[in-house]
Amino acid sequence: MRKIFAVALTGLVIAALTIRVSHIQTAGGSVAGPQFTADGKLVRPEGYRRWVFVSSGLGMSYSQKASDDMQMFTNVFVNPASYDYFLAHGTWPDKTIFVLELYGSTSQGSINKHGNYQTGFMGLDVEVKDEKRFADKWAYYGFNSNEKTASPNTPGKNDCWQCHDQNAAVEHSFVQFYPELLKVAREKGTIKPTVHLEDKK
Amino acid sequence: MRKIFAVALTGLVIAALTIRVSHIQTAGGSVAGPQFTADGKLVRPEGYRRWVFVSSGLGMSYSQKASDDMQMFTNVFVNPASYDYFLAHGTWPDKTIFVLELYGSTSQGSINKHGNYQTGFMGLDVEVKDEKRFADKWAYYGFNSNEKTASPNTPGKNDCWQCHDQNAAVEHSFVQFYPELLKVAREKGTIKPTVHLEDKK
Repeated sequence: MRKIFAVALTGLVIAALTIRVSHIQTAGGSVAGPQFTADGKLVRPEGYRRWVFVSSGLGMSYSQKASDDMQMFTNVFVNPASYDYFLAHGTWPDKTIFVLELYGSTSQGSINKHGNYQTGFMGLDVEVKDEKRFADKWAYYGFNSNEKTASPNTPGKNDCWQCHDQNAAVEHSFVQFYPELLKVAREKGTIKPTVHLEDKK
Repeated sequence: MRKIFAVALTGLVIAALTIRVSHIQTAGGSVAGPQFTADGKLVRPEGYRRWVFVSSGLGMSYSQKASDDMQMFTNVFVNPASYDYFLAHGTWPDKTIFVLELYGSTSQGSINKHGNYQTGFMGLDVEVKDEKRFADKWAYYGFNSNEKTASPNTPGKNDCWQCHDQNAAVEHSFVQFYPELLKVAREKGTIKPTVHLEDKK
């Protein structure tokens, strides 16, 4: 009887604390990796605002011609487990998910007089590494304000893929624009030798 | 004997899982609140890059006169427990810590041609809510690249405190510049009625 009670109590304690652990993992923003629908669309990542912030930019453009559109902020997040892996290895593990948020910008509002701060949400770009699903390892998706699923931007080696493959400093990630990750990549020696980190004239 | 074994086993399980929970909380970026030295200096917050990103700005200034200095990015993070509390209540709990990172900016580098991305780390500003320690609830600190501890910016109701008190939308936080938190504050009705969210001429 005592033994049964002991086993039961131990089981309860394990169950209770396991629930607590799961809860904390979810609250901390851990994710199971990219989720896909039966017909191969990517499910919009949720909770990425609890993931790890990588860096942000304003009005960045790779084209020679300047745009007349409003400059947009780009906030980049990565799933926490992949971030930890990157800190340790300087490379990205399978199932890495990058989320790039687009936000409008304004200069004049409240007491602000110069520079820019973020205003309305404009969309999400998502980059996924999934070695089993994609022969080319990385795939690219865009979500507007409300879409819950997205098809990949033309399958295979499309323009996104090509540009990231040629110009991103580590695998398909532009760590040259993420100062804290760039330090790690330099330390681990994982920057692609073909990539120019300085101004490419 | 069986009872002793049961109690010991249960104790061990609790101990083991408590260690695991603590570890996850640290890895997930949870914090015990602001840490102070015996002589009242704030210990530099560590691990805030795993906290929750609030928003970023570029070259923001509240002065009429534009600055000739390089425009700096400002990345704002808050400790996860306080973020969760804010989502639920629209206000900040005691022991809230905001970290505002300063980063240099550049336009030309790698394949980028326009706009700005973040370059070198330039410093940290920290805002702490500690109701027992500060009669005025909030205190302000600045850390350069290497400082491990910082004294508060002139104690009490200094310029930082006054400006945040007068102009910040919720308590002492400028949620008018953090679009996702602004939504929450509007929904919870916690914006100070005296604060102007639009352009203050």
